[in-house]
Amino acid sequence: MDDEAAETRPAGRRRRGAALVAAIHDAAIAEVLEVGLGRMTMEGIARRAGAAKTSLYRRWTSPHDLLLDALRDAFPQEVPSPASDDLRGDLIEALRQMVGWMGSPQARAVAAIMTERDRHPGLAEALFERVFEPRGGRFTRTVLRHYAACGAIDGALVTPVVADIGEALVIKYFTDTGVPPDDDTITAIVDQAVLPAVGAPLGR
Amino acid sequence: MDDEAAETRPAGRRRRGAALVAAIHDAAIAEVLEVGLGRMTMEGIARRAGAAKTSLYRRWTSPHDLLLDALRDAFPQEVPSPASDDLRGDLIEALRQMVGWMGSPQARAVAAIMTERDRHPGLAEALFERVFEPRGGRFTRTVLRHYAACGAIDGALVTPVVADIGEALVIKYFTDTGVPPDDDTITAIVDQAVLPAVGAPLGR
Repeated sequence: MDDEAAETRPAGRRRRGAALVAAIHDAAIAEVLEVGLGRMTMEGIARRAGAAKTSLYRRWTSPHDLLLDALRDAFPQEVPSPASDDLRGDLIEALRQMVGWMGSPQARAVAAIMTERDRHPGLAEALFERVFEPRGGRFTRTVLRHYAACGAIDGALVTPVVADIGEALVIKYFTDTGVPPDDDTITAIVDQAVLPAVGAPLGR
Repeated sequence: MDDEAAETRPAGRRRRGAALVAAIHDAAIAEVLEVGLGRMTMEGIARRAGAAKTSLYRRWTSPHDLLLDALRDAFPQEVPSPASDDLRGDLIEALRQMVGWMGSPQARAVAAIMTERDRHPGLAEALFERVFEPRGGRFTRTVLRHYAACGAIDGALVTPVVADIGEALVIKYFTDTGVPPDDDTITAIVDQAVLPAVGAPLGR
């Protein structure tokens, strides 16, 4: 971020670059959770961030554009273990990352976008393109593709359905019970559903 | 339903028994979809059904009690094929039934209960106990348990996680895309996710 994007706050402390962007991102999330997708404004976000509206327009075209950047920035990226010899552990870790993220304000903002997809269809599409896809499309997919590339599992088995098993079961558990799955449940999902689908021995 | 439950409508046509109950059930679903869980009343349901409020109280204690009966009554029950020799076909059929149900007003009422579970936790619990459990708990579970009882698959593999795979992936697909899965997708879910988890050969 260049000097023009520096910001003078009422208190006089100047923030630049990453710190200012982070504050604006947080403000965008807070704004959507409080006023909703249809009523969030650049003014509202700027006020929450203690930033000038002009500095927002310099970087983002609309509140939704800004919201998508804020979501992408906070979205976790799973990383296979360096030795690439622990598919099961890496899958468990990927779903743990997902569960950790699910407790965040960002996840509630994503839920708001999905709930209102009929009213803002372009936004839901952009969520997949600009937030999920750059991070692997869905949790466990990066790990599964990595182990397929290494030859540890058959790449033909890593279909869209199979790459969705872990995420679907985590969300379902959360919806049905109202609480996120604990480590035992995550492990059961990996052992009983994900690993069998990629030809790994059935876990018990 | 006995004579006391017979109903004189403004038009003078008398309905009794099953026809009256069906009209009241439909009215309960329409009521919750229009005014919401927190504002549905016996009066409102009676008015929609063209029935007397007293005839509702004779049978149900509250609007939510009535709503649960209406949901249970319309909830599909999967049935394994008589010869019990087509696990794959029966699983596909179970998920087809689920998809058919998902397009119904009853499914929208269930979604309302799940969305508002924080405000009405007892109702969400009762939904599982009084509607889902009597129908097998979730789609594909009755079929899987049946084939396990026949010895076609290992019963130890029909865990809560595994019995949830089909339903979780159908819901996830619907949430992500905004449309219910078509037959090809249902078949892929059964071949690539459900069957491998119960030790059936991997489908491609």
